[in-house]
Formats: sequence, structure tokens, C-alpha cells
Amino acid sequence: MKRYLQIDPWKIIEEGFHPGYNRVSESVFSTGNGKFGQRGNFEETFSGESLQGSYVAGVYYPDKTRVGWWKNGYPEYFAKVLNAPNWIGMQVWVNGEELDLAKIKEVHSFRRALDMQHGVFSREMEVSFQNGIRCRIETNRFCNLAETDSQLVSYKLTVVNSDALVVMVPFIDGKVLNSDSNYENRFWKQGVTDTRGDDLLLIATTKKTGFDVGIASNLEVVANNQRLLPKDQHSRKKFVSNRYSAKLTIGGTMELTRKNIIVSSLDVPRAQMEVHLRSRLSQLKPIPFAHLLEKHETAWRKKWEESDIVIEGDVEAQQGIRFNIFQLNCTYNGEDQRLNIGPKGFTGEKYGGSTYWDTEAYCLPFYQATADEHVAKNLLIYRYKHLQKAIENARMLGFKNGAALYPMVTMNGEECHNEWEITFEEIHRNGAIAYAIFDYIRYTGDSDYLASHGLEVLIGISRFWRQRVNWSEDKQQFVMLGVTGPNEFENNVNNNWYTNRLAVWCMKYTMQSVEWVKNIHPTDWKRIVANTGYKPEEALSWKEVVDKMYFPFSEKHNVFLQQDGFLDKELIPVAQLPESERPIVEHWSWDRILRSCYIKQADVLQGFYFFEDEFDEDTLRRHYDFYEPLTVHESSLSPCVHSILAAKLGDHRRAYEFYLRTARLDLDDYNNDTCDGLHITSMAGTWMSIVKGFAGMRVIDNHLSFKPFLPESWKSFSFHIRFRGEIMEIQVDKKGLTINGEPMAVSG
Amino acid sequence: MKRYLQIDPWKIIEEGFHPGYNRVSESVFSTGNGKFGQRGNFEETFSGESLQGSYVAGVYYPDKTRVGWWKNGYPEYFAKVLNAPNWIGMQVWVNGEELDLAKIKEVHSFRRALDMQHGVFSREMEVSFQNGIRCRIETNRFCNLAETDSQLVSYKLTVVNSDALVVMVPFIDGKVLNSDSNYENRFWKQGVTDTRGDDLLLIATTKKTGFDVGIASNLEVVANNQRLLPKDQHSRKKFVSNRYSAKLTIGGTMELTRKNIIVSSLDVPRAQMEVHLRSRLSQLKPIPFAHLLEKHETAWRKKWEESDIVIEGDVEAQQGIRFNIFQLNCTYNGEDQRLNIGPKGFTGEKYGGSTYWDTEAYCLPFYQATADEHVAKNLLIYRYKHLQKAIENARMLGFKNGAALYPMVTMNGEECHNEWEITFEEIHRNGAIAYAIFDYIRYTGDSDYLASHGLEVLIGISRFWRQRVNWSEDKQQFVMLGVTGPNEFENNVNNNWYTNRLAVWCMKYTMQSVEWVKNIHPTDWKRIVANTGYKPEEALSWKEVVDKMYFPFSEKHNVFLQQDGFLDKELIPVAQLPESERPIVEHWSWDRILRSCYIKQADVLQGFYFFEDEFDEDTLRRHYDFYEPLTVHESSLSPCVHSILAAKLGDHRRAYEFYLRTARLDLDDYNNDTCDGLHITSMAGTWMSIVKGFAGMRVIDNHLSFKPFLPESWKSFSFHIRFRGEIMEIQVDKKGLTINGEPMAVSG
Repeated sequence: MKRYLQIDPWKIIEEGFHPGYNRVSESVFSTGNGKFGQRGNFEETFSGESLQGSYVAGVYYPDKTRVGWWKNGYPEYFAKVLNAPNWIGMQVWVNGEELDLAKIKEVHSFRRALDMQHGVFSREMEVSFQNGIRCRIETNRFCNLAETDSQLVSYKLTVVNSDALVVMVPFIDGKVLNSDSNYENRFWKQGVTDTRGDDLLLIATTKKTGFDVGIASNLEVVANNQRLLPKDQHSRKKFVSNRYSAKLTIGGTMELTRKNIIVSSLDVPRAQMEVHLRSRLSQLKPIPFAHLLEKHETAWRKKWEESDIVIEGDVEAQQGIRFNIFQLNCTYNGEDQRLNIGPKGFTGEKYGGSTYWDTEAYCLPFYQATADEHVAKNLLIYRYKHLQKAIENARMLGFKNGAALYPMVTMNGEECHNEWEITFEEIHRNGAIAYAIFDYIRYTGDSDYLASHGLEVLIGISRFWRQRVNWSEDKQQFVMLGVTGPNEFENNVNNNWYTNRLAVWCMKYTMQSVEWVKNIHPTDWKRIVANTGYKPEEALSWKEVVDKMYFPFSEKHNVFLQQDGFLDKELIPVAQLPESERPIVEHWSWDRILRSCYIKQADVLQGFYFFEDEFDEDTLRRHYDFYEPLTVHESSLSPCVHSILAAKLGDHRRAYEFYLRTARLDLDDYNNDTCDGLHITSMAGTWMSIVKGFAGMRVIDNHLSFKPFLPESWKSFSFHIRFRGEIMEIQVDKKGLTINGEPMAVSG
Repeated sequence: MKRYLQIDPWKIIEEGFHPGYNRVSESVFSTGNGKFGQRGNFEETFSGESLQGSYVAGVYYPDKTRVGWWKNGYPEYFAKVLNAPNWIGMQVWVNGEELDLAKIKEVHSFRRALDMQHGVFSREMEVSFQNGIRCRIETNRFCNLAETDSQLVSYKLTVVNSDALVVMVPFIDGKVLNSDSNYENRFWKQGVTDTRGDDLLLIATTKKTGFDVGIASNLEVVANNQRLLPKDQHSRKKFVSNRYSAKLTIGGTMELTRKNIIVSSLDVPRAQMEVHLRSRLSQLKPIPFAHLLEKHETAWRKKWEESDIVIEGDVEAQQGIRFNIFQLNCTYNGEDQRLNIGPKGFTGEKYGGSTYWDTEAYCLPFYQATADEHVAKNLLIYRYKHLQKAIENARMLGFKNGAALYPMVTMNGEECHNEWEITFEEIHRNGAIAYAIFDYIRYTGDSDYLASHGLEVLIGISRFWRQRVNWSEDKQQFVMLGVTGPNEFENNVNNNWYTNRLAVWCMKYTMQSVEWVKNIHPTDWKRIVANTGYKPEEALSWKEVVDKMYFPFSEKHNVFLQQDGFLDKELIPVAQLPESERPIVEHWSWDRILRSCYIKQADVLQGFYFFEDEFDEDTLRRHYDFYEPLTVHESSLSPCVHSILAAKLGDHRRAYEFYLRTARLDLDDYNNDTCDGLHITSMAGTWMSIVKGFAGMRVIDNHLSFKPFLPESWKSFSFHIRFRGEIMEIQVDKKGLTINGEPMAVSG
């Protein structure tokens, strides 16, 4: 854990430069607007530890998968979120010496700050060069949330102690590498580079996938109150720059205002891209920076109105939850059905891909409750649009007749994880996608979604489950062999209870949905039958599985078992593991982890979270008491589910403890991996801990219901929530819960 | 299956050139002498399909392992048998046109032949160049078995239809690539290159491992009955060549005799290598090619006296078994305790590494019975020398107190497989290494080996098993979780019967051996206690496991189960699988294979093969009838065990059928993979099918015992066998079995 950032309710502040933590800071100071984003890199050269990262949504590269031995059914490629051309880069020279914080003589002051309320990243610093010149730098930048194809930078340099010749060379650089390239290849091809007056333009094309990303920058440089003209315009392979220089007298300033237009071929066809960039740039040019900033801030204000959580009495918690909400809103805005929520958003490259089951199981509730209905719906439609690919994916693995298996990791609907046997068998993801349909309809009341989109997906998924189980002559029941549950510390197990449970639930829900759509939306039903070739016998064969599915159970412990053979393990509580061996994923060999009883993240308990209405509190308590002590929570997705369940069981202390484990995960670099990027999808889990855990929010019979408690160290907490078109303010304090200021009779 | 090679009892002949099968032919025509070997490449340039391959025993490269996601305990590197500098290469030019069979105008005749009896590879061909010149080429070469640091080539060119200027440029080329390099790196560093008169010399050093391989060639070129002098000697980076040219008149010949000395730093230190090479070369120089050949042939004759199997009445079978015996003798000669038997020998690069459990389970019986005792003993000592590395390997995986886990794939005792989760968990290999000690002593009677070496290995292995099992509270027995048995179509299963059985056997055998050594060799026992820190309590704790080990068993079928949950699978016999889906490893996705019932190679039945004395014939039959129908035999190591068991059960037809599946595996390219190299270790299995299967040979109470049958299509078969110092001839014909011509009362 690192605690070098300042505590503040609305800001993240690094006071004094921490070069050893610079990659962590770059992750933390990431900004984005749902269409693109970037790490908190310096604009100018920095030769110290840094991961220069700018990312454009939906633009990926299918890197050749890296495996030991190829096996049939493995994905052809591992999709990488692509490090895009650097659109903020510049060199700064003072009397011939380049500004580079790794080489500077002295850093007198340094402050890097993220204003989450307004979505602005800024830096102020005063440094002395080796040549003795002392300068002050002030920068501001933002990924425009009001007009999501633009990004703005202001960069101001003041000479403090002497006259000096200052040179600024802003550029766009397409010679970028992905830090996680499997074979250290470059992913961008040369495209267009051009400079005209104060405008730079670069269009680069990805290898293989052929995405185009176009960036146009307008540069306005003022020194001594005079607009400078560019000199030495450079346009070479994948790189374009202008050069501005001026002699400053002591106290004089040189200020660069940079307006970037950033688009990809997802939105603008390649043939029109150059014209489009120039036209958008000329629209932007006359608008003052301050005016653009104002509109951007207004857009952020609106986001906060819908999604803020206010915590009184705990500034650390306040900062933590706002940081999570801020980053979730930077990552996904729900306006584009082709986009989804990458595990690192626009803040790093690890894990590649954009879409995991995290979206459905952890992120959907956040966007559902904090944004307009169409945002959550678009997350569902993303999967609907991939249905044919999921059917194709299942077909390649030997399934038939329209069975659909959604990928574990995807960009365009195709499976694209790096080889990991576990991932291969984590078919429970397919159930989470069905569950999300149910969850969305439960929350929004938009049952018609079943008829318009949902049921086709459900039918494909249920067909998969039906074919994936087999009849055990020995048990005289259906079994599901060779799976991995959410607990990725197991591999290739038989009858994972969660997966079996989810499969049965899917088939039941599909059967109900078939009946409902058939009766209520007969026209849609015709279309669905035509599209899917659905036959009534299918429901019968699903029912057979629903009725005769096997669920591993222990009479002795009176609990469902995570999988067959679970009780053969040595069941030693995590509390008895030496601290020096934690986390086990870092200290134990993989085979030892596999045969141990330790649970990475909620597995049986994930089922109790999803299907809570089907179990009474005693049953939940028994399972919670059996499994939680064996759980190491070595996934950032683990604590939130446990927090919600602990809250439900009235164990408020534990609920709060679990919440704390992810609340400031990245701000405090808990797992020593924030340098790789932020844990975006687990941020939604933290939000859930408060809303579903502490406030106990549920939807019951089309109404919001609450069962709140207030963590001891807090005075109160409140949040805005959208529910069926209405924005409400929920407040929980020592006296209880109010909705829009009105006390509410608490249910449950 | 390909059948383009001629049938002949002693020769492999390719009549007419088959360029499409050239990589297959190159594998088949491989030769070696236990110290080095090479594929049947052409000496001259060939721009068609080819894998140029020359390999020096024990010289490897630790290629960076390729994995999707790294997990603790994974090996750091994947050792590759190293493609060594080409020591036979030459260019041939006729009137300025290079000889290249891929570019030649016409091939009038072509014959490539391997004389297995004499260990000589030869080629005769007549070709016309594009320029109209017609030439005849005759070559002979051999890896000298009499003096195993030398290799000889004779290359004769006759101009048939015209006068012509003929140029020969023999070279040594160190710019070789491994075809299976993970990251396409070159593995050799520049060393010494030198030419002096008719001598070429090249020393190359491997990157990382720092092995040196030195090659010196003496060239004698005669044209028009005159010795030619070299011109244009070239010595550049990793390449050295001489150039010989002569004007030949019609019918004239030019003949190159090349004598190579090939050594590695395993035998000659780098500092002395150049001097050593020159000195050995000068010893070799005056000896005529024919004289060297004669001594080489004598050495092969001796090999055949010990190891030949003669089959009367089936030339195909005769050729097949001799090919297998020939290649086994090319691969390993048992004179160097640092060497072992690579899965592809010196014939290709696939699978890397040199040592798998194949050595102990499949190859040991062959070398035990066909060579002097020290040969088999050296295979055991190879593992003895790796004991500390095996202890270190176990320690890295979390085991303690001198527990030893031998690697699945190794060169120097360290684990070095490419990532494959299965391999990781195939700990049964550890048992095979213990079993080999037992098998060796049973065959040779050399019980003292236990005291001198074996027991220390057994103690390390038993300690591993003791720590690897755990007590199941649920079963009130010991269980072994998370393993893969020999059937690599399962992964991470619990209580693999074979592994549990083997572990218990190891502990029992170790306990007995402890008592025996303690009593018979008290001095050795002191040393062993000092070395291992053995404590008497250990035997007690082993006994606890021996007494309370769990073995999965089905009452209904009255068979031991391959693993927990096996009966949950759909048990559909292989015979009902569509032919179009076979082999399943090529047609089914990996996850489907994993959850299927199909068995890649003997697993439970491997236990019945190892521990046959512990089960009566009825029990064997029940297990054979249960498991064999579910076995797809998609490992070349599968049929031999089944052949031996079928023979034992009196099912002679099936025993013969299984034998046929590997008898000509490479000669007929059954699996379409001979192009990658030969299946060396499975060749020993074929030998076992005949000796242990058809002849029913066993060692019972220090005596050889037989239970023979004669395949219907054979007139007779006979073989030489070494047993405790004596070479015997065993013959089986319709009348029965004779030993050295004397009929033997058949046991059993």
C-alpha cells in the first residue's frame, strides 16, 4: 500500500514529485470521455519510468496469441487495446537544454492534480535546469465530455530567474508500442502526416484490423503577448511536429493552447477522415479554451448529479468512491453500442480485450442506476449484436443448432483471450449475460426488451447449456463436466455448483420468457422463431435438465459444494495461513493453489448473490460461514459481493471491511499493480458495496427497497440514483434513510 | 499413411525422387551414432521443402518459454535440442549452374537408401541441368559408430554427356536456425572459423548455455585421377568453405571424400578444442575411407548381434522392426551418463528436451535387454545425478525435507517443458523413475545398485509422494488431488488410480529397500542416512499412506476408476465415433476432449502393465475390457502396452493389431508427422510388443520366462537378448520356442 497522494473530497493531488511511483501516478491521473482516454503522462519528454498511453475506444489489434502448445478451439488472437498515437506530446527546450524531469537539476515544487468534479487534470511545477534557468510550468488538460471528439491542452511556461530562449515542439507521434505486445511488434502502419500553419495532422492505420485513427491538432502559441508562427515544420514517418521559439525576458511566459480532434474509422470513414478532421478543427479553433472548458465542466456536473455518492465524516472514503465513479464515467458513456468496458479502461494495457463478464455481473448495476436507461440497454445490445459470433464460437467448439457461447474476452464478438486453460472453461460467463437481461428488466421494467432482443440471446444460451450437460448413468442425473467457476483457483472441475445453478436458472428463465413473448408479443415471437428455428421440444428438453440437474451437496455440512470432491481438500481457514505466504498467487506454485481449498473470489456465494430470493437467510449464513473463511479475495471483484452478503446478514463490521479492500484499491495501490492501469470493472463493485450493501437497495416488485446501515465511522452517506426515469436522492444517516429528504419506511 | 518406400529386410529405399515427401524422407533416412546424428538431407543445395538438421548430443539451448499467462512454478525455459552447424554441406556447380534438385531440368533416376545392417546412407541419381549437362551423383555417408567423434562423406559426380567445368564448394555452416524456435532467435554465437589447405574448421558457441561445438573437415577432392588443390578459401562469420574446380571430359568424375571430426565441450574443453580437432583430423586423414567404413560396419554388426529381431514370412514387419532397432541404436549408446533419449533423437526438433518418462517406462527394457548392463545402468545414473536438481525442483513447488520431483522434460535435471498445464501435473513420471530402478534390478540382478545409488533416489521420491497426498476428512483416507495421469486427455483430476497406485508402490518399495540396504550394506546405509537425513519415522508415515490410500472403484463395474468422477462421463465406445472425427485431437476442441471419456494412452492399464503380478487374469481382463474400448491410442506410446496386455490375455489377434499400429509408424508416416522427426521412444515400445508381447518374455525369480505366440502371418521370429551377461537367441515358430536352438518348456 502506498499513501503518497493527498486526501481531498474532490481532488487527487500528488504534492512533490514521486518519480519511483510515476507509473502509478500516471494510472491514477488518467482521464477519458468514453471515446478515448489517456494516462496522466507529462506532455514533455520524460526519460524516467513511464508508460506513455493514449487509447481510442474500439480500436484494437489482434496480437498473435502466445501459447506453449496449441490446442483446438484456442483463440487465434489476443486482442489488445491499442496504444494510440500520442496527441499531447511536445518537447520543451530552454537555452538549448531539454525539459526532462528525470534529468533536471532541481524540482523546487511539483503538484499534479485531478479535479474529478470538473474532469480536469493539471500540473504546476517549478524547476531549475542544469544551465541554471528556473522555470514555472502550469498545465491543464481534459478529454472533452461535452464534445467527445476533442481533447484540450494548455501548457504555460514562465521563466523565473533570467532571460532565456524557449522552444516548444508539439508533435503527434505514431511510433508507439504496446507495452504488452506478445512478440514486440509495432501495431500501426504509416498513414498521412501533414502540417499546415498551426495545424498538425496524422492518420495512422492499424495492422491487420485496418482501423484508422485520425488526430488533428491546432496549436496556438503566445509569447510576450504575441502569437508565434511555427518554424521547422516536420512531417516524417508516423510523426509530425511544429517548432515555436521565442526569447523570453525574466518573468516572461510562453503559452501553448492545443486543441485536438480525435476520431477513428468507427465513426468517420477513412476516405472522409482528413476533410472531417480539418473541418472539425476549424469549428473548434475560434472557440476560446475557457469556453470549451466551461461546457466540459457542465457535462461533468450533470454526470455527478446522477451518479455522485456523498460520504460525510470520512474524507478518505469520499475521495475513494468519487475516484471510482469518475473513472467509470471516463471509461464508458453508453452512447455507442459497439463499445464496452475494458478491465483497465483507457488507463493501461493489461488484460487486453474490452469485454469480460465483469460488464454484466459488476458494471451493469452501476450504469443502470446512474445513467439513462439506454446506457444499460446499449450494454445488452452489444451482446445481442454478437449473438451470431457467439453461435459461431460454440459451433467451432462442437456445439450445434444455434447454441451460443459468448467469449470470455472479446472486442468484436470473437473470443480473443490469451491462452489460459481456466479461461477456456469459464463458461459461466454465458449465464451472466443471460442474468444481465433479467437484471436490466427487473431494474428498468423494460420487459419489451425480451421481445425485441433478449429472448434470442436467451434461446442461444439455453441451447448451449442443454448441450453442455450430459446424463450421468452413474448418478441418474445431469452433470456438467470440465468447467471453471468464478473461482479461478480451480480448473477443469466437475459440477461447479454455481455454473450448474446458473445453467438451470437460464433454462427456466428462457422457458418463462418464451411463454411471455409468445403471449404478449406474438409478432416478435414469429420473428424470433424464424430467426432461431426454435422448436417447442426444446423447452421440454430444457425442463428435463431443470428437473434432473445434479447439485453437489454435503449432508454433513448442510451446504452445497463448490464442485465435486471439494471435501477431499484440506479445509484450513485462510486465517491460519502465514501472512508471509499471502497473496498465495504470488507465493505458491500454481499446482499447489489448484489443489488447495482456497477461493479466489465468490463462487458458490456468487450464486447466493445472484439468486438471493431463492434462499432463506439461514441458508445464506451457513454457506457464507462455510466459504468465506476459505476465500483469499485475490480478485478485485471478490470483496464487493461479500460486502453485500455480509450487510444482508447484518454483519456490518465485515461489510465495511470488505468495502475498504477495494474502496481505495488504486488510490493506495493496494496490490502493487496500479502501475499497469486502474481496476475499472472492480470500481463498479465498490459502488455496489455502498448502494446494494450499506443502503441495501433492491428492486422488489417494481419498487426500490432499502435495508440500510451506516458504517460506524461515517456521519452519513447519500447518493443519487435513477430509477425508471426519476432521479432520486437517497440519504442514510444515524436516524435512518430518506428519499429526496422524506423518511422512508424501511422494508425487510 | 504413405507407402512410397521400398520393402526390403535390411534397407530403406526411396526409388525415384518424391519432393513432396522430402521432409518425411529426411527424417526416415536419419543416421546417428549416439553422440551426434543428422537427417537425411542432401549434401548439396536444395531449395525445396527441407529441414536441414544436424544435432550433437547434450548440446541444447534454453529457449524462453512461451506462455499465455505466467504462473508460479512454471519452468523458465524450454530446452531445445540444437540444430548444429551443417557439417556435410556443399555447393556443386556444373558449367556455372548450381545443382539443386528443386531447379534441375530433369531427374532421370534417383535412389536414396539406408543400409541399416551397415549403418550407411547413400544416394544415386542421374540428372540433367537446365544447361543440358547430364551428371550422375553417387554419395555415401555415415556417422561413425566405431569412432564416435567422426562422420564421413563420399560424394562422386560423373559427367555423362559432355565436357564440363565442375566446381565443388564444401563448407561448414553455423548460420543455422532451429525450426521450432519460440521467438525465431538464432542460438549460435560466432566462434572460430579457419581454413588451412584441405582442412576446414569451425567452432561455434551456443548463446546462454555456452556449449561449444567444434567441427573440423578434411577434404580430399580428386578429378581426372588427380588430387585438386583448394581455391578461394572463405572464412567469414559462422561459415567456412573451400572451392575445388576442374574441367571434366565426358565420362570424367570428380570425387570428394570428406572426413569430419565433431566434438562438443561436453568432451573437449573449449581451450583445447582447436588443437584437439586438428590432432584428431590428422589421425584420421591417412586412413582410407574404405577402411573407416569397414570398422564402422563391424561396430554395427556387433550391435545387430545383440539386438536384432528376425521375422520370417513378413518382410514389411522385418523392415519395420529393424528400422526401429536401428534408430534406437543411432540415438543412444549408453556410454555417457549425461546423455539420454530425446523423443525425436537426432532426427528432428519437436518436443525439445532430451528426457521424458518415456526413457524409464518404454526405452529402458530395450537397452537393458540388448546391450551391456552398464548401458541401462547409465540411464539410471543419469537420474541419480539429477537428484539434487529434483529436490530443488520440488522445493520451488513448495515441498520440503528432501522431497524430490523429477522434471517432466529435462536436459540437465531442471524442468524445461513448454507451458502445458497437463505436463505440469503429470507427476506420475516420478514413479516411473522409481519403477525403473526396480525393473533394472529385476532384470540384471544388480541389487547393489540400490545401495550405491538407487535408494537415495527412492527416498527423495517417496518423500514427495508423502507430502503430495493429503488426508481427506470426508473419505477418512489419503487422497491425491490435482494430477494428470498418463492419459493426457484429462487434466487436473483427483485420485488418478494409476498415480495413487504408483505412489503407494514407491513407498512400499522404498521401505523394503531401506531395510535391505540397512541389513546388507550397512556402510552404504550410513552414507545414505548422512546424505538424505533419513529418519525412521519417515517409513512409519509412508506406511500410514500405504495402508490408508484411497483408490477410486466402481462396485457396479467391478473396476478401479481412472479417477474420481469417471463414471459421470458418457461412456460411448470409440468404435461408435465417426471415422471423420478421428483422431479426436485434430477434430475436437480441447475442452470437449477433456470432458469426454476418451483415453489417449494406457492409464489404468499402464498400472496393470507395471504391476501385473498383483492382479489375476480375470481382474486384468475386466479392466482391459472396460478401458480399451474407450482408448483412442492417440499417443504412439499407447499400442505397445495394449499389445502386451492383449497377448497376456491370449487375444493374439488384437495383440498383433496393436503391434501393427506402431511397427511402421514412421516408415509409413501413419500420423502425418514423420516430417518433424521420428518417434524414437515409441520405437522401443514396438520392440517390447514383440519381446514382451509375442514372446511373452518376463523375468520371474531371476530367470527369463516366456509365454510365446506366433502371429498368424509370420513363419517365425527370433531375437537376440542379453540376460545377466549372456547373449541368447530366442526363436518362436509354429512348433514353439527355442532358446539357443533348444526347445524350452513354456511357463505359465
